Amino acid sequence: MVKHLKIGLLGLGVVGSGVVQVIAKNSEKIFSTTGIKLEVVKALVRAKEEKQALASEYGFSLVHDSEDIMNDPEIDIVVEVMGKIEPAKTFISAALNKGKHVVSANKDLIAQYGNELVALAQQNGCYFYYEASVAGGIPILRTLVTSFLADEITEIFGIVNGTTNYMLTQMVKHHLSYEDSLKQAQKLGFAESDPTNDVDGIDAAYKAVILTRFAFQQDLGMNDFTIQGIREMDLADLELAQRLGYEVKLIARIKNSITGVYADVAPKLIPQHHPLASVSDELNGVFVKSKGIGESMFYGPGAGSLPTATSVVNDLAVIAQRTNQDLPTTPFIEYKKQVNLQKKANVTGRFYLALKAQTKAQIAKMMEILAKAELGLELVEQKQTNASRFVYLTKSITLAQRDEVVAELTKAAIQVTQTMEILEE
Amino acid sequence: MVKHLKIGLLGLGVVGSGVVQVIAKNSEKIFSTTGIKLEVVKALVRAKEEKQALASEYGFSLVHDSEDIMNDPEIDIVVEVMGKIEPAKTFISAALNKGKHVVSANKDLIAQYGNELVALAQQNGCYFYYEASVAGGIPILRTLVTSFLADEITEIFGIVNGTTNYMLTQMVKHHLSYEDSLKQAQKLGFAESDPTNDVDGIDAAYKAVILTRFAFQQDLGMNDFTIQGIREMDLADLELAQRLGYEVKLIARIKNSITGVYADVAPKLIPQHHPLASVSDELNGVFVKSKGIGESMFYGPGAGSLPTATSVVNDLAVIAQRTNQDLPTTPFIEYKKQVNLQKKANVTGRFYLALKAQTKAQIAKMMEILAKAELGLELVEQKQTNASRFVYLTKSITLAQRDEVVAELTKAAIQVTQTMEILEE
Ligand SMILES: NC(=O)c1ccc[n+]([C@@H]2O[C@H](COP(=O)([O-])OP(=O)(O)OC[C@H]3O[C@@H](n4cnc5c(N)ncnc54)[C@H](OP(=O)(O)O)[C@@H]3O)[C@@H](O)[C@H]2O)c1
Ligand SMILES: NC(=O)c1ccc[n+]([C@@H]2O[C@H](COP(=O)([O-])OP(=O)(O)OC[C@H]3O[C@@H](n4cnc5c(N)ncnc54)[C@H](OP(=O)(O)O)[C@@H]3O)[C@@H](O)[C@H]2O)c1
Repeated sequence: MVKHLKIGLLGLGVVGSGVVQVIAKNSEKIFSTTGIKLEVVKALVRAKEEKQALASEYGFSLVHDSEDIMNDPEIDIVVEVMGKIEPAKTFISAALNKGKHVVSANKDLIAQYGNELVALAQQNGCYFYYEASVAGGIPILRTLVTSFLADEITEIFGIVNGTTNYMLTQMVKHHLSYEDSLKQAQKLGFAESDPTNDVDGIDAAYKAVILTRFAFQQDLGMNDFTIQGIREMDLADLELAQRLGYEVKLIARIKNSITGVYADVAPKLIPQHHPLASVSDELNGVFVKSKGIGESMFYGPGAGSLPTATSVVNDLAVIAQRTNQDLPTTPFIEYKKQVNLQKKANVTGRFYLALKAQTKAQIAKMMEILAKAELGLELVEQKQTNASRFVYLTKSITLAQRDEVVAELTKAAIQVTQTMEILEE
Repeated sequence: MVKHLKIGLLGLGVVGSGVVQVIAKNSEKIFSTTGIKLEVVKALVRAKEEKQALASEYGFSLVHDSEDIMNDPEIDIVVEVMGKIEPAKTFISAALNKGKHVVSANKDLIAQYGNELVALAQQNGCYFYYEASVAGGIPILRTLVTSFLADEITEIFGIVNGTTNYMLTQMVKHHLSYEDSLKQAQKLGFAESDPTNDVDGIDAAYKAVILTRFAFQQDLGMNDFTIQGIREMDLADLELAQRLGYEVKLIARIKNSITGVYADVAPKLIPQHHPLASVSDELNGVFVKSKGIGESMFYGPGAGSLPTATSVVNDLAVIAQRTNQDLPTTPFIEYKKQVNLQKKANVTGRFYLALKAQTKAQIAKMMEILAKAELGLELVEQKQTNASRFVYLTKSITLAQRDEVVAELTKAAIQVTQTMEILEE
């Protein structure tokens, strides 16, 4: 007799409808490698009419009430692809409490309430997988679990937000302003009408919280991240960076050492021959530095219906494989190490500093502050338009030094229009 | 009581001594994730004196006779890092027949005798893992097994030979001739004194044979590959390719479709903004095209003591984890699909053709042959030195067409000094 695992979907939007299609298309292959047929039996939706055609085509039923899924003893796995915190959190908890395995793509929820849900999954002997929550189609989480067992990761950094990478790429490629590139991203469905989470770096930070658990077994909170987005990014800075041999990318980065972990999300200058520099448009790339392998990178689509759904269904196939072999359920990753935050005085980097001064007196004051700070500055641009624009690159300084000089300049009414770290090889 | 898995090493060279160090360095971590302590107890060597210091430092014994490892009932896992076909094949077979798990980094052996060894492992209920055999430190094989369950790969191609990638990179970076770059690679230990396997594309083809099993579950023979190396590569072709917006890379590629599989190893033109173009020096990169994820790439070191050893020890840790949980032994990959080779008439591509003609009559003949062949040629270089050099790019043609025109030109004594496919986006 063919064994089936029956699936209830929560949400049937971009990812949810992809899941339905990916299961149908790969059903034979999944059966031949796992010995199990995956079958979508129900999907929770708000507007049934819109989704009826899909449901009929693939032979599952639509429900309005989540209880119709939670209380259905036939359903083995719940796939949460609704997004947002509530009611997703309540629904996932209910599913786990009913002994159903859960697969989710919800980074917001997993970053903020992962602990609670992971504990609940363990209590109930259920799998809780969420590979698609970070870098959509790139299998980065499972790779960190299975292929770094004999290695020690020291740093993980990457482009994990497709929307902002698309915007930055389009700005330099087509000489667009920030506003125009945002409009274009919204038109193409890469950015939402309220782009806050993307452009302010919050989405990238959620993903970095999850990456930190897999790379370092530590559980950082969002407050442990220094977060700087790309809102109002000036095309002039992107173009100057290019002339200097760099591409600007919004980078989520976590560095670990015995003295502590430092995590930030910020636009950074990446040398043009670095593999991350060629990660363009909506694509994602995660770079791993480790003591054994050295440097490795994982590149692919960070979003999109099919790639994300393929990742969700891969999680389902792993559950199928393991349950068919009666393997014990083990957590996706254990992250119970003590969090040990690095002090800003211990983190160093070179920086790109763009400054604006209005008057001669301000310029003189700026020169004085900069001279006193001893940043080993190299002037790379000086421009006189309505205000005077100066761009400098610093030598390697501490974050504390950078913050101090930025504060002093700001106090003297000198605008610091951009500060970005320069990533070295 | 702490459980141990005891390891016997066959060979203690670059990779073998790395394995000893990586196990020592990561012993605690491996224990905490797998519940098992890995312990190297014996190593087979030829010259004991040279290796005695290492053995004493890490507390294992050196043996001259493989039987000392095979007949030691305490040894659970044999790590084969000697290289070559024999006696490695005999030793691995003996180990499997004694019920010992085997980890190997030996691509030559696994490409040519994988079937036999995999069957033997299964008969004896042993693990036989060899992640390090392809692209050293890049965890590509296990990723193909665990993260493409719900996807269908259509093409896999990449830079899997570090030596030739180093040579090609150095040639263009420092305007070196083929000979000089080879000498430099030899001096740095990237190339052996007999570089045949690397520069003639044989090593890349071994790896591609293994990749084909993991990506398509088909077992191609070396004869199923069209293999062209980089021997005597002309710097002029690399530099012209660069001016045209491409980097030349030695690419192993396998394409699959319902009409069959086509596999080759050859230098190809990669667009400069393609992620593989930025894989430089001795690094490797494997690009995967699939129906679900779309495009993904896995990048990292293809060789080196630590990266390769880290990959070997990761295999050991996976064995530790599985045996500690009493999981059933399953093969690394099953590859029993019927091989279905594609006809050359069905494979198309654009090509870079460099030709040399000595006399006016030859030039006229060349023009005639090219005109008749209808290749949609674009002339990109024409040079008069001691002979006349012409370089063309073709439109998309079939491999059969390419082979035909090359044969005709050669028959007319017109030298075809280089033909390389141009990879599109
Ligand atoms: N899209 C991507 O490329 C991508 C990539 C990685 C991760 N993710 C994550 O995947 C999840 C889903 O994303 P998506 O792009 O598929 O979103 P989406 O297209 O907006 O789909 C969400 C679906 O869930 C439904 N839904 C929301 N709340 C509901 C409720 N209370 N009851 C019933 N149905 C409800 C929505 O119904 P209505 O249509 O009635 O609102 C919609 O059909 C999110 O967590 C997202 O962060 C998405
Ligand atoms: N090096 C890399 O970066 C790399 C990367 C990926 C895969 N690999 C693979 O890993 C394997 C080992 O490579 P390697 O670079 O470590 O080679 P290596 O440095 O030459 O080491 C091989 C070792 O095996 C010993 N050996 C060979 N035949 C023996 C025999 N019959 N009895 C006893 N000892 C014997 C050699 O001893 P002697 O010193 O006495 O000759 C040497 O110590 C090869 O299959 C290679 O293809 C290597």
